[in-house]
Amino acid sequence: MPQALIIGAGDGLSASLARLLAREGYAIALAARNTAKLAELAAATGATAHACDAADPAQVARLFESAGEAEVVVYNPSYRTRGPLAGLDPAEVQKSLQVCAFGGFLAVREAARRMVPRGRGTILLTGASAGVKGYPESAAFAMGKFALRGLAQSAARELHPKGVHVGHVVIDGGIRSARRPETGEDSLLDPDAIAETYLQLIRQPRSAWSWEIEVRPWVERF
Amino acid sequence: MPQALIIGAGDGLSASLARLLAREGYAIALAARNTAKLAELAAATGATAHACDAADPAQVARLFESAGEAEVVVYNPSYRTRGPLAGLDPAEVQKSLQVCAFGGFLAVREAARRMVPRGRGTILLTGASAGVKGYPESAAFAMGKFALRGLAQSAARELHPKGVHVGHVVIDGGIRSARRPETGEDSLLDPDAIAETYLQLIRQPRSAWSWEIEVRPWVERF
Amino acid sequence: MPQALIIGAGDGLSASLARLLAREGYAIALAARNTAKLAELAAATGATAHACDAADPAQVARLFESAGEAEVVVYNPSYRTRGPLAGLDPAEVQKSLQVCAFGGFLAVREAARRMVPRGRGTILLTGASAGVKGYPESAAFAMGKFALRGLAQSAARELHPKGVHVGHVVIDGGIRSARRPETGEDSLLDPDAIAETYLQLIRQPRSAWSWEIEVRPWVERF
Amino acid sequence: MPQALIIGAGDGLSASLARLLAREGYAIALAARNTAKLAELAAATGATAHACDAADPAQVARLFESAGEAEVVVYNPSYRTRGPLAGLDPAEVQKSLQVCAFGGFLAVREAARRMVPRGRGTILLTGASAGVKGYPESAAFAMGKFALRGLAQSAARELHPKGVHVGHVVIDGGIRSARRPETGEDSLLDPDAIAETYLQLIRQPRSAWSWEIEVRPWVERF
Repeated sequence: MPQALIIGAGDGLSASLARLLAREGYAIALAARNTAKLAELAAATGATAHACDAADPAQVARLFESAGEAEVVVYNPSYRTRGPLAGLDPAEVQKSLQVCAFGGFLAVREAARRMVPRGRGTILLTGASAGVKGYPESAAFAMGKFALRGLAQSAARELHPKGVHVGHVVIDGGIRSARRPETGEDSLLDPDAIAETYLQLIRQPRSAWSWEIEVRPWVERF
Repeated sequence: MPQALIIGAGDGLSASLARLLAREGYAIALAARNTAKLAELAAATGATAHACDAADPAQVARLFESAGEAEVVVYNPSYRTRGPLAGLDPAEVQKSLQVCAFGGFLAVREAARRMVPRGRGTILLTGASAGVKGYPESAAFAMGKFALRGLAQSAARELHPKGVHVGHVVIDGGIRSARRPETGEDSLLDPDAIAETYLQLIRQPRSAWSWEIEVRPWVERF
Repeated sequence: MPQALIIGAGDGLSASLARLLAREGYAIALAARNTAKLAELAAATGATAHACDAADPAQVARLFESAGEAEVVVYNPSYRTRGPLAGLDPAEVQKSLQVCAFGGFLAVREAARRMVPRGRGTILLTGASAGVKGYPESAAFAMGKFALRGLAQSAARELHPKGVHVGHVVIDGGIRSARRPETGEDSLLDPDAIAETYLQLIRQPRSAWSWEIEVRPWVERF
Repeated sequence: MPQALIIGAGDGLSASLARLLAREGYAIALAARNTAKLAELAAATGATAHACDAADPAQVARLFESAGEAEVVVYNPSYRTRGPLAGLDPAEVQKSLQVCAFGGFLAVREAARRMVPRGRGTILLTGASAGVKGYPESAAFAMGKFALRGLAQSAARELHPKGVHVGHVVIDGGIRSARRPETGEDSLLDPDAIAETYLQLIRQPRSAWSWEIEVRPWVERF
């Protein structure tokens, strides 16, 4: 039974991914800083739950040791803050760099260590439109998500010829959730629909790999 | 039975698309300048074959009238020539612009006329890495494929909010064929694998649409 | 006395370029379809005026023969039309491709033929934000300006190692003119300011060449 | 006398910038972690020298307090490390993020605090081709330089409408130095030539600002 490790698990996209990959026959490992909120999802998908600070090298190393040989690794954590540059707290910038990008690097490194010797595997990194366009009053998030995209592109160029598929998914728009009301029909990204795009990246044969794809609602301006 | 119209049909990618979409339940219409070479594919997929110069407005208009209400339209035609700028024949540049881009516009226009009133449909345009990177001694092809990408991006921004999905697929690498030997395992794009990515774009729900995706072999440098 | 050839001359940017380059010691040759409107500018800058349809290969070849050995060639012509895809006249798309892109190719080809043997020279192509972003209801202009950018990038990669500098200037915003009122201070591009950026590209030593630069007013959204 | 603050001063580009801006009438302030190596440059340009760890918020705040009201701020620091992802030391990735990007944020923040109230000023950030293309075995540098570019783009969108010019210069190629021999004529970037491009960005009137420009030697592949 192939294994999938989802880092930054909770509700929304990661829950949709866990449910979809469980249905597709994967054994799921979920990692989050706080595992209390994973209980329901773990029960529903038969997943194991792992406490892990995704930006801590030692904790990430332990996570990969305990979670087994994952065929698929997904990195979701994100930290967003907004506000004019002149008033931006440096600690917030650090947190965005650490959560969005440095943790992504740790996951890619641990995954590469295990996947390169096997010559196969898929690593998927969850990006944002902020990673391709730096918006005003959003410098911290731009820095974190641009850095993640740089990591993803470098990793794709390095790991593809070693048989390991790296994908960067640019989420452009808000994700539907209980807390976020729609303003029109399908005006927000359905997390189940996004998860389907992740699954297609996982299924791509190596003769036709994509390293990047963006998803947005039909009504989203871009 | 939903209909799919494939323009620029022949062997390779368009044949893989025809076979895959036929298996998925689409009635297939194939269009090419020379229908003689479509006979075998049409027989194998139950498709109708239509003679059409894709860069002729009147012929393209007639094609759409005779081919029926297509849910899916794919535009494949491409013309590539190489050589130093100083020696490039202007007629070759014109041909690249007409085949790669102007014909694409005609197909998008006819498709938009029929799909926008219905508020649904998918238009897929076959691009190339030459459409995102202008290579030396390849100005004509760069011009044609950049223009196609500009069309695709403009069309996506215009038609997505009207319910019509526009996708641009960047083919980065050679496509496997009887005439093109592989230099290593999976070193060329398998047309069946590319077709699978087209199908996924067709299947995306409108809450999570992509307008562009690139595909390349695992060993391709980029 | 070095020579500069400005194709698509008239008022606005090309007039600013002619005046600036004349002050910098260049002998100026101006080319336009209708030379009647060049009389005043030619008189003011001591320029020669040449009638030329920039999209006609034979006329462009004659232009370069009669205009002398230009150190600098600037290609400005542009044709813009707007409107929904479904109603777009194919002739308008053809015109945009011909004026924005095919004429640019003819100019680059003739310039390359003369500059490559000398191992020096500068070719500057006037682009638009439409060449990097395809706007809705603007497919024709997107196609023309994307194609021009593809030409410029291919030409830069091919000609830079031969000593010929190719630059693509992305004009992002409206240009100030008698017919276009400002909505705020410096809310439109001053053509004299744009011309200064062209001059700096011309002056760049070959150890530090740029192939692309964008200019926009401080208040322009992007 | 207008003031220019150059952070990450030493030899190469920053020394060329200091000399050029001094000739252009700027009072120069140089900042580096180790001021010992600034003595000669400071003497030659009449500059003040400031010890500063560019990634330390308190030290950067003090630097801006002591250096006076700079019209121009340049951020140069960079940290590059190479190697396969699987073996990359997390501390190296942290250092690249801190030096390339977080320090850049601190400089932009302090500059914005002073320039926005005045409604003028120029902030220039020194990028690299690694900031637009993630190379294999170079994930750490890609992360740092992508993050810097995200910062620059976000800052440009936010600060341009407030009268503050933000520029990101993509250095694509090696810079000529005593330690780095040329492989051909002008095969490396001349730091004096790069400095000239910085000066032109400083001089751009706000009706025609650029936020990004790349420079590379004529023979560099891209």
